[in-house]
Amino acid sequence: MNVEFINPFLNALLNVVGMMGHTELIAESPRLKKNDISMGDVSGLIGMVGPQTKGSLSITFEKSLALRIMQRMLGEKTKEINEDVTDMVGEITNMVTGGAKKELGKKGYDFDMATPIVVSGKNHTIDHKHKSKGHVIIIPFKSDSGRAFIEICFE
Amino acid sequence: MNVEFINPFLNALLNVVGMMGHTELIAESPRLKKNDISMGDVSGLIGMVGPQTKGSLSITFEKSLALRIMQRMLGEKTKEINEDVTDMVGEITNMVTGGAKKELGKKGYDFDMATPIVVSGKNHTIDHKHKSKGHVIIIPFKSDSGRAFIEICFE
Repeated sequence: MNVEFINPFLNALLNVVGMMGHTELIAESPRLKKNDISMGDVSGLIGMVGPQTKGSLSITFEKSLALRIMQRMLGEKTKEINEDVTDMVGEITNMVTGGAKKELGKKGYDFDMATPIVVSGKNHTIDHKHKSKGHVIIIPFKSDSGRAFIEICFE
Repeated sequence: MNVEFINPFLNALLNVVGMMGHTELIAESPRLKKNDISMGDVSGLIGMVGPQTKGSLSITFEKSLALRIMQRMLGEKTKEINEDVTDMVGEITNMVTGGAKKELGKKGYDFDMATPIVVSGKNHTIDHKHKSKGHVIIIPFKSDSGRAFIEICFE
């Protein structure tokens, strides 16, 4: 996978969560997903299809972080991952992918986005399946309220 | 959502799991997802993008059913949802969507498929997010080894 693909997603997540969620995420280095597992409690997933490529993106949050962003973004304090939280995670997923799509479009990489899917469940894990093994990039993030992960797969 | 979209997915799952997994699934009536929750332990998800539409598909299995199909399809008996099982669920998701794509293409509905994603986690739930509420179709299936659900969302 082209490394140019990675930073637009990373930056878009920092921007969206920072500006709208008033929460600073600190990114660790992007790396090929080998032994890493991105375990979390709520994830936004989206498919991407372009003329030259196809792929998938996931953004996984620990519950504590998702609820904190919810509180800071919408002023709504909840104890559980309810539909408002999954709506927010779906919207973050859309905005991050849309932001990255715009940046990548300027460089000549075009793709269309499918509709997002949000998964809820304690300690779930995500596997991006692709024909050519070893092409999933994972970016871990930490914050004052828990961890998040982006995973990007392009064929 | 056009009802013509539903049967190709339903039939493709019956065929794939029946022929390759030697397991008979019995479909309940497709219905709009309102109060239904499709809770399961391993799910295959895929994004779809076409000139007229975009959407997403998920196929969710209870653990008992996924492990039984694994055993019948590959002769491999496992007690946990490991990478072999998630590979199988990703492949089923690809085959079902590919089969439906072929049928729908004959009717003039074209779309491309993103890469599949497989989610593992006890009792997770799936939300297909879309702009126009009320357009997720859910089809529950039962079998001798547990339940499965297809959810289809087209915008």
